[in-house]
Amino acid sequence: MHLSVAVAKVDKWAVRQGGDTLEMIERPQGGVSLVLADGQSSGPGAKSISIWVVRKVVTELADGVRDGAAARAANDALYALRGGKVSATLAILSVDLEARALVITRCGDPPVFVRTANGDLRELTSSAPTLGFHRHARPDVDILPLKPGLVACAFTDGLVHAGSRTGRTLDVPATIEALWVASPTAQGLADGLLARAVGLDNGHPTDDTSIAVLHVLPGEGDGPRYMRAEMPVPDY
Amino acid sequence: MHLSVAVAKVDKWAVRQGGDTLEMIERPQGGVSLVLADGQSSGPGAKSISIWVVRKVVTELADGVRDGAAARAANDALYALRGGKVSATLAILSVDLEARALVITRCGDPPVFVRTANGDLRELTSSAPTLGFHRHARPDVDILPLKPGLVACAFTDGLVHAGSRTGRTLDVPATIEALWVASPTAQGLADGLLARAVGLDNGHPTDDTSIAVLHVLPGEGDGPRYMRAEMPVPDY
Repeated sequence: MHLSVAVAKVDKWAVRQGGDTLEMIERPQGGVSLVLADGQSSGPGAKSISIWVVRKVVTELADGVRDGAAARAANDALYALRGGKVSATLAILSVDLEARALVITRCGDPPVFVRTANGDLRELTSSAPTLGFHRHARPDVDILPLKPGLVACAFTDGLVHAGSRTGRTLDVPATIEALWVASPTAQGLADGLLARAVGLDNGHPTDDTSIAVLHVLPGEGDGPRYMRAEMPVPDY
Repeated sequence: MHLSVAVAKVDKWAVRQGGDTLEMIERPQGGVSLVLADGQSSGPGAKSISIWVVRKVVTELADGVRDGAAARAANDALYALRGGKVSATLAILSVDLEARALVITRCGDPPVFVRTANGDLRELTSSAPTLGFHRHARPDVDILPLKPGLVACAFTDGLVHAGSRTGRTLDVPATIEALWVASPTAQGLADGLLARAVGLDNGHPTDDTSIAVLHVLPGEGDGPRYMRAEMPVPDY
């Protein structure tokens, strides 16, 4: 099989730093994890929370800790550090080669959609509380067998709120389906969702928006790996 | 300005897991760091060393520790943990937005080339010892002003040794220059170098090879960020 990952991200208009953090890491026993956190509010305060949460989760995953336990550790440590006063939503999309599974872990109900090889698109709902508010938290964990055709898409709520200033909203499932049919690639879906969201805000995003897409394809089990990143360098 | 990053990576032929680890992270004060470690020998032992070193460096960088101090911390911690018996080479390529600089940190003389906007290509030499062998180690750190046209390229020694089994070698500077003139993009250079190396080994790489390229371009200081990754999923 082959794995294709795409991430697209934009900060709130006229804000120097967004409140989202998204990192991709290689898992110690093989596979990758995409860790996405959205800190409460926006700006530097939100960024410091989300970067802290992602770093905690990434460190745990790199130690071989399972995704659900890594999310609990981040919750407990954030609660201990800030006394339940700050919070973040968390989504982890992992291709776990030991378990031969796609593992999806959530706290605080971040939007996550899964599309199966036969074309069923569903949103994963979550009752797990936002990270950092409670002494005890149990993340929602879904485990899906790794199969060609599987697509997972996670994003922060900037995508859901796009257009709210102008009275328009994005029909997320319909947009995912339309984009996927037009261009069934991780990159096409991530970049397409971001472009639609930014378009609804007339090019001036009302919130930080991060989108991560993971696509399992048929293909050779070995060969080179590639990664590319493109980003603006602020002129301040 | 705009930043373009490309990574290409292949494991030694018929080895389930290579000994290189390469991660990209967002810096807490803005910018990105590419951290590349090559563990001593190959296979799972080397991988566990390189993944440990990269994780230690990434954790320090995420805490706001400067690159040179992060490399020293990794050296000291590896030495304390393994008593000077295991080692790794380390290269960190950072776009540091606070310093408005490209910061290049090395231990154990990993191959690093820099190409300036006016077309000068030079290899950075290093006298800093391999990480983990000595109680005290001082990494080599080069700091270059961030300017459009700047290119930095780091790789593990698999690229240098490509073709050794068949008596051929890669003239690395000449290959970089030829690839860059043909396609002046980070992706063209990273993918082109990997393809040449794998070609010299007749498609069966004799060593793990990782290549990281960072390219500073003129352009807008804001706008979306994109990341893509492509990787095989082993069939075991």
